[in-house]
Amino acid sequence: MKTRNSAHKRGKHNSLRLTRIAIDTYRENVAYLNCRCEVYRAEGFQSMSKIEISVDGKSILAVLIIVRDDSILAPGELGLSEQAFRQLGVKEGTLVRIRHAPPPVSMEAVRRKIQGERLSEEDFHAITNDIVHNRYSKMEMAAFLVSASVTGLDRDEVLYYTRAMADTGDRLNWKEPLVADKHCIGGIPGNRTTMLVVPIVAAHGMLIPKTSSRAITSPAGTADTMEVLAEVSLSPERLHAIVQKHRGCLAWGGTARLAPVDDTLITVERPLGIDVMGQMVASILSKKLAAGSTHLLIDIPFGPSAKVREMSKATQLRKLFEFVGDRIGIHIEVIITDGRQPVGRGVGPVLEARDVMQVLENDPDAPSDLRQKALRLAGRVLEFDPDIRGGQGYAIARDILDSGRALASMKAIIDAQGRRKKIPRPGRLTLDVTAPASGTVTAIDNLRINRIARLAGAPMDKGAGIDLFKKLGDSVKKGEALYRIYSDFDSEFQFACESASRDSGYTLGEKADITTTMFEF
Amino acid sequence: MKTRNSAHKRGKHNSLRLTRIAIDTYRENVAYLNCRCEVYRAEGFQSMSKIEISVDGKSILAVLIIVRDDSILAPGELGLSEQAFRQLGVKEGTLVRIRHAPPPVSMEAVRRKIQGERLSEEDFHAITNDIVHNRYSKMEMAAFLVSASVTGLDRDEVLYYTRAMADTGDRLNWKEPLVADKHCIGGIPGNRTTMLVVPIVAAHGMLIPKTSSRAITSPAGTADTMEVLAEVSLSPERLHAIVQKHRGCLAWGGTARLAPVDDTLITVERPLGIDVMGQMVASILSKKLAAGSTHLLIDIPFGPSAKVREMSKATQLRKLFEFVGDRIGIHIEVIITDGRQPVGRGVGPVLEARDVMQVLENDPDAPSDLRQKALRLAGRVLEFDPDIRGGQGYAIARDILDSGRALASMKAIIDAQGRRKKIPRPGRLTLDVTAPASGTVTAIDNLRINRIARLAGAPMDKGAGIDLFKKLGDSVKKGEALYRIYSDFDSEFQFACESASRDSGYTLGEKADITTTMFEF
Repeated sequence: MKTRNSAHKRGKHNSLRLTRIAIDTYRENVAYLNCRCEVYRAEGFQSMSKIEISVDGKSILAVLIIVRDDSILAPGELGLSEQAFRQLGVKEGTLVRIRHAPPPVSMEAVRRKIQGERLSEEDFHAITNDIVHNRYSKMEMAAFLVSASVTGLDRDEVLYYTRAMADTGDRLNWKEPLVADKHCIGGIPGNRTTMLVVPIVAAHGMLIPKTSSRAITSPAGTADTMEVLAEVSLSPERLHAIVQKHRGCLAWGGTARLAPVDDTLITVERPLGIDVMGQMVASILSKKLAAGSTHLLIDIPFGPSAKVREMSKATQLRKLFEFVGDRIGIHIEVIITDGRQPVGRGVGPVLEARDVMQVLENDPDAPSDLRQKALRLAGRVLEFDPDIRGGQGYAIARDILDSGRALASMKAIIDAQGRRKKIPRPGRLTLDVTAPASGTVTAIDNLRINRIARLAGAPMDKGAGIDLFKKLGDSVKKGEALYRIYSDFDSEFQFACESASRDSGYTLGEKADITTTMFEF
Repeated sequence: MKTRNSAHKRGKHNSLRLTRIAIDTYRENVAYLNCRCEVYRAEGFQSMSKIEISVDGKSILAVLIIVRDDSILAPGELGLSEQAFRQLGVKEGTLVRIRHAPPPVSMEAVRRKIQGERLSEEDFHAITNDIVHNRYSKMEMAAFLVSASVTGLDRDEVLYYTRAMADTGDRLNWKEPLVADKHCIGGIPGNRTTMLVVPIVAAHGMLIPKTSSRAITSPAGTADTMEVLAEVSLSPERLHAIVQKHRGCLAWGGTARLAPVDDTLITVERPLGIDVMGQMVASILSKKLAAGSTHLLIDIPFGPSAKVREMSKATQLRKLFEFVGDRIGIHIEVIITDGRQPVGRGVGPVLEARDVMQVLENDPDAPSDLRQKALRLAGRVLEFDPDIRGGQGYAIARDILDSGRALASMKAIIDAQGRRKKIPRPGRLTLDVTAPASGTVTAIDNLRINRIARLAGAPMDKGAGIDLFKKLGDSVKKGEALYRIYSDFDSEFQFACESASRDSGYTLGEKADITTTMFEF
């Protein structure tokens, strides 16, 4: 048999006998090669690199793991995990060939970006399309993100990138002329206004189908906090039904495939610490475009420990949002808010949910700054309604809240999504962090508060977090409690307490030391 | 038992029961997690990301693979491959914790580079040190390389980077005042001058302990070609002994740990197609510094399909080599050579070895361009000898070659390294690529010739490659052979032939069309 003979001869060269490895590796194809295999040694294959496995015109990509283990596979064999084996669809013992996976075609555009070129709309579509089809390794995604970060994206590029990301997934269509949304760029502990804006706006009758993310680097996201009260993981069908009936929802966005490439890129952006304005705007607006929002209010907190620390940057960011919004057909209003300190008292899912319910229930103890901020944001969203005059929104929002209609709306949404039978309590381990001297609170470091709350276990441990007793401008006496740390587990509690003892995040001084800036409200 | 109880409670939270997976994964630690595991779902762990596994103050890093396979491990368990399990050194069933691996400390410098800052010598040391200790993922290496590529490295940064890379591995010390070396930046097929320069220079008595790399993107490197004639994989001890006795060697550099971080970075540079001047200079000179070279001749081929295509870039590159060389104490001479076409006739290990031996044997059929280039390079290296007047080197080199002393030196080196009993023959499958019309050869595309030779199977298949019959300025008649493709395997042969039929790499025209440029020789 001539074919077999020549195939056998090639076995010495670059062909390998296929063998199945009895591990089902979920979403990722994994291939195994023996470290004493000639092909591995000669061709410079590397552990964890992507290879292409081909046979009879078919080919699959897989991540390579080098093993020293002859009991798993011999030199001259290529092992494939169950799912990769199924995908290739040939029998064990078949001779297959491997090579370094060719780089995705759109890497050519990334190379041009590295050389400082501006990319076209077609380039961004090619890149996001390759990424969403898993053709980019993390190394290649890093090359794209870093090149875009160093050379910057001009506003046209941000527009192209936004459209390209939105096109990688599904698009929701609510079949209504006004679909309201609000978004905060993040960074401020306790800033749970969304859970107040949604019931107020929905009670007015305006459509606000709000989906939120879970916390990534913060101690609580809206989805984490809402989850304390209700189910947030809803199928697209159920979400639609709830929104139709109640005009709003407070769901986790992870079940819909909205601009999924953004979720992929964030797994590279975050560990690399890439934080670029153009990237952020494209990331936010692509999700909103895919979610079918027509009117969007954006909250940019501004302050010495907020994400935006210079007013010039805040203004630049606003212009960029407006530019892209106009071109993708979303009516955008941007407001720059007071980001000098946490909003409300609680930091962490359970404590933040408590604050939100206090405001909705018109509890006299409710944190007034959270109430005020939510009313102002809700007012601006209500003014998207052409029948509401500019400036009237706040009074309408306040009326909806004070009358209990917002609470009724929230209860209806909670019941529709699936009310939790038992609301978890704040953590059982507590420590009061006290003032080292008497004085006035002149600064609260948002980053520090976030960090201590995360060390305490938030958001994984719903009851973990921080409860703030003092805010900017408050007078404290030496030994008086500034805040209380809550945790459920000894080691986390220790970490949080140690961190707070090194730096509580509070600065005490004279009233005149407090940073003041002109905010829009 | 209170501890056990609390530990059990934490099992729901973030602790996992350790289990051993019977796969020995060679150099890379691999960890497995079930996709239905709560920790995986809640914490956003990703397949192929790096995690830190810790228990009792010990911790190891591992690459995570998500499996769907309850027979391998259950939700709530963490599987470790044999080598990772040994490294962690605790019993099966122990509760361990996992988290996203913290980024290496020096990523902070990379972030500054992304923001456009210039890095200090300490920064480069911190980065290369973290990389050589496997603390960088490919994603992080890509971030470093791309940021350096986009913002550029100024000449001081190239100097710092060179020193930092050299410091990551061993340093050779030959204990002689003059240790000669030559290096070509690559890109020209058939350019095997090193295999002529070494025996000529060694025959003169000058120390030239040459180590070379294997081909990465070309159809043959010096190590691949020398390997046709002799063993090239030598232990450091044997290499030293050979060099002491014969004043030279032609070995593969992979056995010594010279600037190993460069070998790591190249696995990211290559697929990303990063080709930056500063990176190249630091990469070459760090290896030379580690190899103990004191005098170095650098060959920069220049031409329309060479790596360097503008004279201004060639000059810039020369200045950069000189700047860094002066500061690291290596005497550097840079020459810009004719890179308009391949050198010699053969392209591919066996065919190139044939050309080299023809020149050494003073065969009248030996390719004269290879002989000329080698003599001129050898002459310049010989002039590093303070006793040789400027301009005399060429005549001395020619005398050594013509007298047969170079051949004797080469034979001695081959015997010392380990002569091959049987030299492989050129590939059994051949095709002559012919001229589509009569005319003069006005251009030969180096990239195209390299590509066709690689498709034919070089350098893995030693006998594969191309034998050139016509060079620049030669007249050809329609139907006359331009070159012959050699291959040993049907499919490679087909690929190479198809590629050559699409574009042979040859341009035919009028003699006046040939690019001419002023070269140094």
